[in-house]
Amino acid sequence: MRRYIEWEKYPERKALARSLLRTHKFSLPPACIPEFQLAPLPTTNPVLIGHRWKEYHNALGLGEIVDFSWHTVLREKKDIIHLLDFPYNGETRRDQLMQGKLTDNKYHFIRNHGGVPNIDAAAYELEIGGLVNKPVKLTLAELQDPSKFPQEEVTVTIQCSGTRRIEQIGQYPGDGDELINAPWGEGAIGTAVYHGVSLKKVLKIACSGVQPECAHLEFIGADTYFKKGDVFNYAVSVPLRKVRATGGEEVLLAWEMNGKPLPQIHGYPLRLVVAGYIGARSCKWVTRINALAEPSMGPVQRQEYLYYSFQTGKQNAEYSNGFSIQAMPVSSAIIFPEEKQIVVHSGTIEVKGWAYSGGGNWIERVEVSPDGGHAWYETHQDEMTEKHYHAWRLWTIKLPVDAEGWIELCVRAWDSANNTQPTFVRSAWNWDLHVTSSAHRIKIYSINTSRSETRRRIALMKEHGIESFEPLTRPLPFALEDEKKYLETVRRYPREPTS
Amino acid sequence: MRRYIEWEKYPERKALARSLLRTHKFSLPPACIPEFQLAPLPTTNPVLIGHRWKEYHNALGLGEIVDFSWHTVLREKKDIIHLLDFPYNGETRRDQLMQGKLTDNKYHFIRNHGGVPNIDAAAYELEIGGLVNKPVKLTLAELQDPSKFPQEEVTVTIQCSGTRRIEQIGQYPGDGDELINAPWGEGAIGTAVYHGVSLKKVLKIACSGVQPECAHLEFIGADTYFKKGDVFNYAVSVPLRKVRATGGEEVLLAWEMNGKPLPQIHGYPLRLVVAGYIGARSCKWVTRINALAEPSMGPVQRQEYLYYSFQTGKQNAEYSNGFSIQAMPVSSAIIFPEEKQIVVHSGTIEVKGWAYSGGGNWIERVEVSPDGGHAWYETHQDEMTEKHYHAWRLWTIKLPVDAEGWIELCVRAWDSANNTQPTFVRSAWNWDLHVTSSAHRIKIYSINTSRSETRRRIALMKEHGIESFEPLTRPLPFALEDEKKYLETVRRYPREPTS
Repeated sequence: MRRYIEWEKYPERKALARSLLRTHKFSLPPACIPEFQLAPLPTTNPVLIGHRWKEYHNALGLGEIVDFSWHTVLREKKDIIHLLDFPYNGETRRDQLMQGKLTDNKYHFIRNHGGVPNIDAAAYELEIGGLVNKPVKLTLAELQDPSKFPQEEVTVTIQCSGTRRIEQIGQYPGDGDELINAPWGEGAIGTAVYHGVSLKKVLKIACSGVQPECAHLEFIGADTYFKKGDVFNYAVSVPLRKVRATGGEEVLLAWEMNGKPLPQIHGYPLRLVVAGYIGARSCKWVTRINALAEPSMGPVQRQEYLYYSFQTGKQNAEYSNGFSIQAMPVSSAIIFPEEKQIVVHSGTIEVKGWAYSGGGNWIERVEVSPDGGHAWYETHQDEMTEKHYHAWRLWTIKLPVDAEGWIELCVRAWDSANNTQPTFVRSAWNWDLHVTSSAHRIKIYSINTSRSETRRRIALMKEHGIESFEPLTRPLPFALEDEKKYLETVRRYPREPTS
Repeated sequence: MRRYIEWEKYPERKALARSLLRTHKFSLPPACIPEFQLAPLPTTNPVLIGHRWKEYHNALGLGEIVDFSWHTVLREKKDIIHLLDFPYNGETRRDQLMQGKLTDNKYHFIRNHGGVPNIDAAAYELEIGGLVNKPVKLTLAELQDPSKFPQEEVTVTIQCSGTRRIEQIGQYPGDGDELINAPWGEGAIGTAVYHGVSLKKVLKIACSGVQPECAHLEFIGADTYFKKGDVFNYAVSVPLRKVRATGGEEVLLAWEMNGKPLPQIHGYPLRLVVAGYIGARSCKWVTRINALAEPSMGPVQRQEYLYYSFQTGKQNAEYSNGFSIQAMPVSSAIIFPEEKQIVVHSGTIEVKGWAYSGGGNWIERVEVSPDGGHAWYETHQDEMTEKHYHAWRLWTIKLPVDAEGWIELCVRAWDSANNTQPTFVRSAWNWDLHVTSSAHRIKIYSINTSRSETRRRIALMKEHGIESFEPLTRPLPFALEDEKKYLETVRRYPREPTS
């Protein structure tokens, strides 16, 4: 069996699938699997099980795709955090994220919308049609022939618009949409050097350019997508203006990632890489490109990845009242320390993270606050990775911290167009839970050993064989103060007035 | 076996217990029981299992107390929320809480510190000693003889200082202390008419008054308490000045609650009721009262219920650097609607809750905000229960709400001394997680049917047989907008500029 199906060229195939989906009796997920985000998330790995999407595939006799996808995960993405097993959504771990400017292919996050197709590269053809002057089919060998198309390498950060969604879920749950919204943390972002050809040049050279009415390019992938009882190939679009921008470097057809062949789960043999845009536009396993006068009518483009306003939700959301998320705004995250970590320090805490801006902007400045956003400290340029037009910067700062107890660290970045981030999660909350770009805030428990009382407590703990403050909420087994000292103090400063 | 033990008069008994506790091999709680509050709380009932305290009791051969306590719970408190099975901590449900000014005995919250003692009322004696002019022992019959002691009835709200602790736990976990800090919601508060005798008058009549050095009265209960490997009877104290205040009505020895005999779990046959103070001072199953020059050295008085400052925690907390919680500050809570509830309304939401102030103050004003604390609306006196010197007021307000989506309702009360509540949980966070008296905030999802788009969506849902917005995050199975309308709108207001 071919491990993917083309739907878009075969209306009778879609009609049959639709009728199968309407008559099939679907089972409900087991009670132990939370339906979307009102229940606390499980701490299992995978975190969520894609029960419904497996059912959809099975109803159409496509169960093999489900199995093949998971085997691909185990082969190519074994060590990342599996947020949703099918369609696969996997998040890079903190230590993997901060290993360097480029993310290792095996650690780069994955947000798939369908199963992984098993494409035979030798038989593969990319079809380009619609409002082009000359429709063509190109083999991989033709595309990769440098005498036909000049090749490009671009360092690109790809970010899922769900990055940091967990912060929106925690405060204000939103739309479950057609599939479960993956509860992404800070690791739905990664950077690689992509190697391929510019779409602009392929259109010009192979298709003799586009027709005057063309304003958008639609990308169709080999993965199968479901929406409201209907079946599709994954399809998205970007404006022609984007394809043509800055010499064509912003929209690549890529077959290499960090000097290696594109992994199967990342779109092998060929994918789009759209720099500065939401990851969803970087269509994987692309089999067809359509030149269109208007944006794609595919559900991923038209009905999803919409940025709704605050009062829009289940009671009034329509597709036309959210705007389509394309370019990504400035954002950042603290990766170390972690939320709720106990940090023992002597007045300075090393804080590390990433900062990124899309839409052709890059990061100019990163500021970190030790007090919930009252005072801000700037990171030094020497403590940030180098600038790229289309990539993030990793940063480190030695942050002065005096206060003990629960403190709130937060970070905000400024990009080359002077954009900075909204203040609180609520400042940019939206029903579909996209683009959590507010200043990233974490709570840590600060223990400052420059204080004599704290050093005394640590010594006392050691006397009792206790080496760690973990778990923070477990009581210490010894008396916190001897009776003599206690009485001296309370007699000197009694609670009640004497008159 | 007697289902309680007196420890405080028998140093050799305490020494033996201490040595048993030090040599006993205690088992750890099963992994599925969260150790204190860093893991999400279970949604079981009981919520938490008092593993360690059961182990302590069993080590001393007092397992029967554990069983007797739980049987008492099932008999007297079956229908409330069991937060901790042993020592029993149970919280009043929302509907029970709002039934009226007085809380039904079977619904009144319970915060016990040890097992329930099984006292034979006929053999019971209250011993009064220490710095009194005449130490005495009084039988229940003597105390209840109106020719000896004038009887009093006072309407008193008792509140655990842990009320609304869950808000502190959720944001900033703190001390697990010697036993698990119960994750109280808004129901660790209740009101009853207590009937008994004034302690002031008992001291005067039966003991011929106290000696000049006496400044505090210590109450010792029949329940067994453990702290740092040592064993005690429950013991707390209040200032003599409190006992003498306002004619003695603020500190009662009570045997009736709402016209019925004191339930076993509430302190039968005799308890203290200390109006305006933290519930912990209202000692249940009182067997001895000591007149002292200084506050009780019992661990509950001296080492717990301390109100620490913000930077005090595991690294530096000592008993003398928190102050003892006695009088309770002004506080309030929203009971209806509930956190994360979907509220369908037509521009007005009925909000209900309680408001209380201790320390001799009463509630003058309650204000509710529909927008996180920006604008406030005052409740009308006719929509509040009557004033008492020592009791809460329940309140209702019809709150104007226009906005849709996630809104934050909050409440603040003002008392007769013009005190009001801190703004945020963080404003009064403290390591032992006591006195969560900040403005109570809940998030609700507002759906306003005065809007035509919302009415249209509700009609469309009905056409598809969907009667409810629950669960909020489950997607609607139909298209949110037809293609024709979608195209009209996006063509009229295209995303990209034309030039």
